[in-house]
Amino acid sequence: MFKTIGVFGKYRDATIEAPLKTLTEHLESKGIEVKLGYTTAAEITRDLPQKRLQEHLYQDIDLAIVIGGDGTMLHVARRMAESEVPIVGVNLGRLGFLTDIAQSDMLAEIDAILAGDYVIETRMMLDVDISRNGDKLYRQSALNDIVIGRHAVERLIHWQVHVNGQFVTSARSDGVILATPTGSTAYALSAGGAIMHPGIDVISMVPVSPHTLYNRPITLPGDATLDITIHNRTPDVAHVSADGLIGINLKGDEKVTVTRSQNAVKLVHTESYNYFSMLRAKLGWGSAQQ
Amino acid sequence: MFKTIGVFGKYRDATIEAPLKTLTEHLESKGIEVKLGYTTAAEITRDLPQKRLQEHLYQDIDLAIVIGGDGTMLHVARRMAESEVPIVGVNLGRLGFLTDIAQSDMLAEIDAILAGDYVIETRMMLDVDISRNGDKLYRQSALNDIVIGRHAVERLIHWQVHVNGQFVTSARSDGVILATPTGSTAYALSAGGAIMHPGIDVISMVPVSPHTLYNRPITLPGDATLDITIHNRTPDVAHVSADGLIGINLKGDEKVTVTRSQNAVKLVHTESYNYFSMLRAKLGWGSAQQ
Amino acid sequence: MFKTIGVFGKYRDATIEAPLKTLTEHLESKGIEVKLGYTTAAEITRDLPQKRLQEHLYQDIDLAIVIGGDGTMLHVARRMAESEVPIVGVNLGRLGFLTDIAQSDMLAEIDAILAGDYVIETRMMLDVDISRNGDKLYRQSALNDIVIGRHAVERLIHWQVHVNGQFVTSARSDGVILATPTGSTAYALSAGGAIMHPGIDVISMVPVSPHTLYNRPITLPGDATLDITIHNRTPDVAHVSADGLIGINLKGDEKVTVTRSQNAVKLVHTESYNYFSMLRAKLGWGSAQQ
Amino acid sequence: MFKTIGVFGKYRDATIEAPLKTLTEHLESKGIEVKLGYTTAAEITRDLPQKRLQEHLYQDIDLAIVIGGDGTMLHVARRMAESEVPIVGVNLGRLGFLTDIAQSDMLAEIDAILAGDYVIETRMMLDVDISRNGDKLYRQSALNDIVIGRHAVERLIHWQVHVNGQFVTSARSDGVILATPTGSTAYALSAGGAIMHPGIDVISMVPVSPHTLYNRPITLPGDATLDITIHNRTPDVAHVSADGLIGINLKGDEKVTVTRSQNAVKLVHTESYNYFSMLRAKLGWGSAQQ
Repeated sequence: MFKTIGVFGKYRDATIEAPLKTLTEHLESKGIEVKLGYTTAAEITRDLPQKRLQEHLYQDIDLAIVIGGDGTMLHVARRMAESEVPIVGVNLGRLGFLTDIAQSDMLAEIDAILAGDYVIETRMMLDVDISRNGDKLYRQSALNDIVIGRHAVERLIHWQVHVNGQFVTSARSDGVILATPTGSTAYALSAGGAIMHPGIDVISMVPVSPHTLYNRPITLPGDATLDITIHNRTPDVAHVSADGLIGINLKGDEKVTVTRSQNAVKLVHTESYNYFSMLRAKLGWGSAQQ
Repeated sequence: MFKTIGVFGKYRDATIEAPLKTLTEHLESKGIEVKLGYTTAAEITRDLPQKRLQEHLYQDIDLAIVIGGDGTMLHVARRMAESEVPIVGVNLGRLGFLTDIAQSDMLAEIDAILAGDYVIETRMMLDVDISRNGDKLYRQSALNDIVIGRHAVERLIHWQVHVNGQFVTSARSDGVILATPTGSTAYALSAGGAIMHPGIDVISMVPVSPHTLYNRPITLPGDATLDITIHNRTPDVAHVSADGLIGINLKGDEKVTVTRSQNAVKLVHTESYNYFSMLRAKLGWGSAQQ
Repeated sequence: MFKTIGVFGKYRDATIEAPLKTLTEHLESKGIEVKLGYTTAAEITRDLPQKRLQEHLYQDIDLAIVIGGDGTMLHVARRMAESEVPIVGVNLGRLGFLTDIAQSDMLAEIDAILAGDYVIETRMMLDVDISRNGDKLYRQSALNDIVIGRHAVERLIHWQVHVNGQFVTSARSDGVILATPTGSTAYALSAGGAIMHPGIDVISMVPVSPHTLYNRPITLPGDATLDITIHNRTPDVAHVSADGLIGINLKGDEKVTVTRSQNAVKLVHTESYNYFSMLRAKLGWGSAQQ
Repeated sequence: MFKTIGVFGKYRDATIEAPLKTLTEHLESKGIEVKLGYTTAAEITRDLPQKRLQEHLYQDIDLAIVIGGDGTMLHVARRMAESEVPIVGVNLGRLGFLTDIAQSDMLAEIDAILAGDYVIETRMMLDVDISRNGDKLYRQSALNDIVIGRHAVERLIHWQVHVNGQFVTSARSDGVILATPTGSTAYALSAGGAIMHPGIDVISMVPVSPHTLYNRPITLPGDATLDITIHNRTPDVAHVSADGLIGINLKGDEKVTVTRSQNAVKLVHTESYNYFSMLRAKLGWGSAQQ
């Protein structure tokens, strides 16, 4: 069972103070040790004991609870993945793709989880490795997507991609998104990609505003190795980011390799969770007809 | 090894006679027994012995060779799937998604296959079952797609779909496509779906011209059970077809169930085959930059 | 001013009876002669005097009021266009693209119109003329669109188009839509067309699920003459309809000509009308940020 | 007639030297005074007299001939627009949307133009004006498009737009394109916009990868005034450019106004020019069927 729980609040958002206090008191009343995430603890100190503050606590907790939006959830989930800590998200009023528990149901849902009434859903992640002549320059993991996007506003990116060593295509575009099924409902969807059920093991490659109209999204096996190279004549046209975090600019002589991560995120869901209900609510899909 | 080979030509196309004769003589010169597909034999009788003619020969052959386009290939592959006969396609001048051997390379490629230099690629198929109050009305398999499309030209189809018993969405549209990865480059692509690598185990659901703009393609696990129901007030608005074959009209009180088929198509490829090269050629994708 | 007003209700919808009675009594109390549309009068006879019933009354009225949805509005507007009778739409609870007056505001809005507080917005229409060897086979007008769509469910339409005598393109697709700006938010939008402000004088040509990915919507000058021909080998693959009405099947040797109609629809708007507000409400567009 | 002709070559491209020399000698042999564009003359000095060099010569010439691609053409055309100098484009081997004369036909086509066998096609331009509290910060014209795009790679732009003072929509996206019909086949097409025939007077607004799926391209009357404001909490998220030129970053308190320019580009076409042929060649559209 969950004896030590880490609680993480949305960064620099004062509205989390009340639910955070409610939650921690509730957990402690049940004899559970609560530790606050580092930034959360640094911000929210008024009524919460200082001893909870710990910088790297991921190995020490059995469960992570996030109070915030999908952005906070993405951030914490990436860090939990390494130590295989399961994670559950409580939204602040607006249903998220990842934060499916409403604040009003928080205590009841958490109690259900503490009582063992939950399932773990594993979500694949992607790793991006950037190297130049074999020297490693950058490495990051992403739960949503790796994006190679425009850094120089006035230029298209000329890129090409190999999959498992086989040349696939070259294109000029605003960028290219490599998305997990989790990320298929994020930026990849805006760029015209299809939604991927989280139960499938795939990597979606979605070109962004491709110059050539027939460069369409392609979905690849989850165990594929994607190598992307940049072919602009001038450097610093392209930028690589993971889950929207600032990454690095590319000179053009790097190799950008994207593969499925060895780590995965373990989402905790109670029985109130339903993937398709969430999609309908988030995307405005039609309701059942009588 | 392949001792008995079935040869199938494009239906009602006189241009197949020459390559068909070349191929059968070549195979027979190597001691292989050749059997012509029923319609092929019925049409092409001039120089080819009548004894080859057999109606249902699928259990009796070790390999099927198709000379024609993707349409012929789809048709024959569906029938081979049941008896697990591997199949290879020779195109008539225009590269197909499924008929990857050029006519000019036919004998060399077939010799390579006879010498054992080939791989088998398994392609999943879909089954559609249509029932009313438990009575089975229709069953068909498809290598590309099951399409629920408009029969009455002036009306949109009101449909809704459940996946594994869970309600997903309702929509009004020209139709909905349930596609295999093989079919993802056919009608589903025209309707805005993403390309699915044949190595992944998924079913793509692609609404056709949906009235509500946010009904986007969704890709589901290959083992999902999709139940589609029609909710128009008038009957015969919708029609179900498999791989473009005429199917049946729906009254509206049927249940249309789509699942992965137990059978699969076994495509034979020589080392000259490369999925991504084929995509580039078919879709006009960019070539490698120096 | 408006001395004689025609009132048209949604076909076979009993819920219009109450607002219809309210409206006609209100108008008559102001000394206005009210005439009911033919089908409306035939259905709703209980409390409404029989003398109002007249079959072809379009020349005899100064204003048409429609109570119903966009479908009813399209139908009546097309008929009013010839006699240049202005028209206003009252919706039955759900805002329409064309029926912008809410039922709850009906009497106040109609009073504003009677008081002269309104503007007339002219909406272009399209004519479709179908001929074979110079013989005219069919002619219809449309406020939304002319659609050449699939009649035979299993086949793509092979079509080509000339504009002002110049060859534009050939394509294989589910069909092609020729839309007015009014129709740009209807079927053309579902098929991937752009929204056209009604103040511009254009004809949008939108291919439906084109087989070749680069066949994109193109918007042409309003005075263009579009000639479409069908090139399937078998007849009756294509069907032409206007505003969703059943039209005729094409054998393949016809010429289908689409031009801007000499007639136009005159929509009456009060000052409460705002095109962009209507779009936001209908399409779910974002509201203003503070 | 054309007595003084300005000749402009692609910037920093040595391959223009030969056709440039051929062209200028040909023109001078006919008694026409030739002036080289400033950058062109500065680069190509070997065999061409220095006296041709003049920095601001736009008022002094009767015709501009561009040898290069669409980029060069865009650049020169924008400058010619003010002084109403007609312009014609010769491509360097690859047909352009704007440079329709093949190098091999150059002398014959130019002779036709000199003989008066040409038409002038007027292409509208857009002006963008950026101001803060009434202070003008930036002004630029564009033949293709005004783009408000991401400057900060990791953030979406929150923007909203008013047309003629009426609120239209707010959205979060990678950016928004305001395109002329000329620009409708450039970036706007990649971002999902429809093609606009150059004979129509419209401004296309195309959101780039909008977060909300129903924010679709909308085409507005050419005389519309578009006011765009940025609503991100952090400055410098958005950047405004005209025809791909580096423009300025936005703090967020600016008003960006886009209107049709008073100037227009006058393209010179010989009878060999055909807009639809050019589209077919550039976009891979289908050829006429027999």
